[in-house]
Amino acid sequence: MLEQLKEEVYNANIELPKRGLVTYTWGNVSGINREIGCFVIKPSGVAYEELKPSDMVVVDLNGNIIEGDYRPSSDTPTHLELYKKYPEIGGIVHTHSPEATSWAQAGRNIPLYGTTHADYFYGEIPCTRGLTPEEIDKAYEKNTGLVIIETFEQRGINPMYTPGVLCVNHGPFTWGKDAGEAVHNAVVLEEVAKMAFRTELINPDAASAPDCIREKHFSRKHGENAYYGQG
Amino acid sequence: MLEQLKEEVYNANIELPKRGLVTYTWGNVSGINREIGCFVIKPSGVAYEELKPSDMVVVDLNGNIIEGDYRPSSDTPTHLELYKKYPEIGGIVHTHSPEATSWAQAGRNIPLYGTTHADYFYGEIPCTRGLTPEEIDKAYEKNTGLVIIETFEQRGINPMYTPGVLCVNHGPFTWGKDAGEAVHNAVVLEEVAKMAFRTELINPDAASAPDCIREKHFSRKHGENAYYGQG
Amino acid sequence: MLEQLKEEVYNANIELPKRGLVTYTWGNVSGINREIGCFVIKPSGVAYEELKPSDMVVVDLNGNIIEGDYRPSSDTPTHLELYKKYPEIGGIVHTHSPEATSWAQAGRNIPLYGTTHADYFYGEIPCTRGLTPEEIDKAYEKNTGLVIIETFEQRGINPMYTPGVLCVNHGPFTWGKDAGEAVHNAVVLEEVAKMAFRTELINPDAASAPDCIREKHFSRKHGENAYYGQG
Amino acid sequence: MLEQLKEEVYNANIELPKRGLVTYTWGNVSGINREIGCFVIKPSGVAYEELKPSDMVVVDLNGNIIEGDYRPSSDTPTHLELYKKYPEIGGIVHTHSPEATSWAQAGRNIPLYGTTHADYFYGEIPCTRGLTPEEIDKAYEKNTGLVIIETFEQRGINPMYTPGVLCVNHGPFTWGKDAGEAVHNAVVLEEVAKMAFRTELINPDAASAPDCIREKHFSRKHGENAYYGQG
Repeated sequence: MLEQLKEEVYNANIELPKRGLVTYTWGNVSGINREIGCFVIKPSGVAYEELKPSDMVVVDLNGNIIEGDYRPSSDTPTHLELYKKYPEIGGIVHTHSPEATSWAQAGRNIPLYGTTHADYFYGEIPCTRGLTPEEIDKAYEKNTGLVIIETFEQRGINPMYTPGVLCVNHGPFTWGKDAGEAVHNAVVLEEVAKMAFRTELINPDAASAPDCIREKHFSRKHGENAYYGQG
Repeated sequence: MLEQLKEEVYNANIELPKRGLVTYTWGNVSGINREIGCFVIKPSGVAYEELKPSDMVVVDLNGNIIEGDYRPSSDTPTHLELYKKYPEIGGIVHTHSPEATSWAQAGRNIPLYGTTHADYFYGEIPCTRGLTPEEIDKAYEKNTGLVIIETFEQRGINPMYTPGVLCVNHGPFTWGKDAGEAVHNAVVLEEVAKMAFRTELINPDAASAPDCIREKHFSRKHGENAYYGQG
Repeated sequence: MLEQLKEEVYNANIELPKRGLVTYTWGNVSGINREIGCFVIKPSGVAYEELKPSDMVVVDLNGNIIEGDYRPSSDTPTHLELYKKYPEIGGIVHTHSPEATSWAQAGRNIPLYGTTHADYFYGEIPCTRGLTPEEIDKAYEKNTGLVIIETFEQRGINPMYTPGVLCVNHGPFTWGKDAGEAVHNAVVLEEVAKMAFRTELINPDAASAPDCIREKHFSRKHGENAYYGQG
Repeated sequence: MLEQLKEEVYNANIELPKRGLVTYTWGNVSGINREIGCFVIKPSGVAYEELKPSDMVVVDLNGNIIEGDYRPSSDTPTHLELYKKYPEIGGIVHTHSPEATSWAQAGRNIPLYGTTHADYFYGEIPCTRGLTPEEIDKAYEKNTGLVIIETFEQRGINPMYTPGVLCVNHGPFTWGKDAGEAVHNAVVLEEVAKMAFRTELINPDAASAPDCIREKHFSRKHGENAYYGQG
């Protein structure tokens, strides 16, 4: 079942090492079919070089494995929580990409320093609080999803306007309308993280870009007045 | 029309990802034919892998689209202002190349720290002021061109001696006598930005190179007494 | 003799330049056959491009060369001490990989800042004390092995839980159950070192990840309750 | 004439872009035949992709061009001074490699922080004083050679033990017994510069490696008691 989605999610997964976002198996992509109510995700710990579309695992929104020869990614419960909470999300990516992960390890939101950031993320990229020992002990990956949701809800951030997050001491998750867009946003986040790092070293007093730049660039690419691209 | 120029501008465009200056579609190159009074520019948001010479868009110096199946780059009005103001400019490049963009985000001019810089840019590479909300709201890309011109005019910088600029919170523009030279200068700017970043971290008290070094290296490559290369 | 192990150690050696961990000949891998009591190691100073499986040198646990047309790596006595002390070690790697070596030159343990680190190393990656002039003069490479052992014993670190070390002013050694795993850990160490470097520059007050994160991620991949991968 | 040396110097030149040390034409290698009293050097400003062994220019020790269709590198007078002063030098390299050039721009000697450095350079890598306006004006490239010599003579550094230098605000020169070894030393210098940069950011109080480490590692590779490699 879902052969086309498996192909799509497979292609999104192998894009990660091509783009330099993963070392070994440190990443996974999923994509969902909302009508059927199932998502397709990379199997856990399988090398990218050996991966085939048919290896993708099908999981329903109760977390049941519907099809697949392998165990799904250990991060599956995190993907599940995000899919359940946000019906607009069609694809999710998790990596340990080095630039974004360094911000996650530093426990800081990535400030919006320029138009590259504003073209894709409408405001700073939030960093979650740490999980409590109880949250880690009981249902670590599910609680990782819940703390991402808490971060967006408490801070009033629209996850479709800011399609990414840093899990403190861990690494980034990004998402989009499908698996391909989620990977695209993971690549952008890595570039944005790299440039924010350099920006602060070049000028420790660097200020965030003004709101008018943020609004302008986001609306050039998003919404009804968008005029970037071929329309 | 302008088939040869389209080929040239196409080649200059695909040089950008080859040289590592662009991620996805974050860059564009144009080149002008001054006799005909038209320039040729990359279409907006088209992937570099899919680009063909015939996709290039022809625009006249009033900003009218003369030929092309696609919308031109959203940065076209910036290119237009520069071509109108400076008749010596034959080609223009815009990228979000990470090292130069980090300086733009930091809001700093790049000091002239060495001969690599001095071989191509006769003095520090200026960073513009930010646009006002009105300038952004009304004609953002045109005003980006105007603020570049303001920067060079107010500071008395010759744009053919310093063929590049940083737009604050945004990224670099470079130019040259044709599209190829504009790309060459974009590559040099990225290297110069990378080395200036490291220079300041190695020695926070690093001073700009003395004027005699600047003069010597610029004149080794430019002007009637130039003796670098095959003459 | 040991043709299969030679093949395995050869493959592990050539993985080093592929993964960007070595410049020229700055690295070596060995692997041991505990039943026969011999290990196989790269010859000294032979270029990776010219290396063949049959060039590997066989050494016994008294340090005698049993087979081989070449001298073994000059670091052989370090490998020997580690094999003698820790019977669980099946393969050892030494490199001058730039990120890990920079921490070694800085003389600092790498703090455990996140889950990438915790997935492989159960605690900070220790940096040894410097050798005394006498230790350097008499049996430098052997004493390098002994000071690694001293570091783990004095600090009560389990070398199979933290399979790597930084030799101060020198560079990293890693190990594992075989040569392949030792190389895997060398790659991980390099990524971890790179991200820890950035973490501290992004946030000079960055704190180590809490113990519960360390425990959770290590136990996701190791021990009887491990659930990462295909089990 | 000198066809074999041209081939050798050509090969050394094209190694520079392969190793990532040069952008465009920012580098040159020469090699000398002491019996004939001539050296062979890259032509000025010719792209590496188009270079052929027969393009190499032959220059004698009075600076006369003996053979060649092209002008020699503009840095030829610098090479000449070094060949005249130091008869042990058989090959010379100049690049603007980014890590070493950043130290040159910072105006600092590279401290000896570890064994990678000590394996090739017996002490810190010196940075020259700046040239006076008169020195720059009259015979810039020749005076660049003279100030390198002054640096080694005044500080009592043996140029065959420390086969490289940073010209302040400019970039590195390295040398060796032939063109190939000079390139090898240029690659090592770049790695050493990169790691020293990181070392100081990881630990601003990092100290140079003790003398005993310096002596040990240099003598492992050099002199009559050398035991690294195949002897």
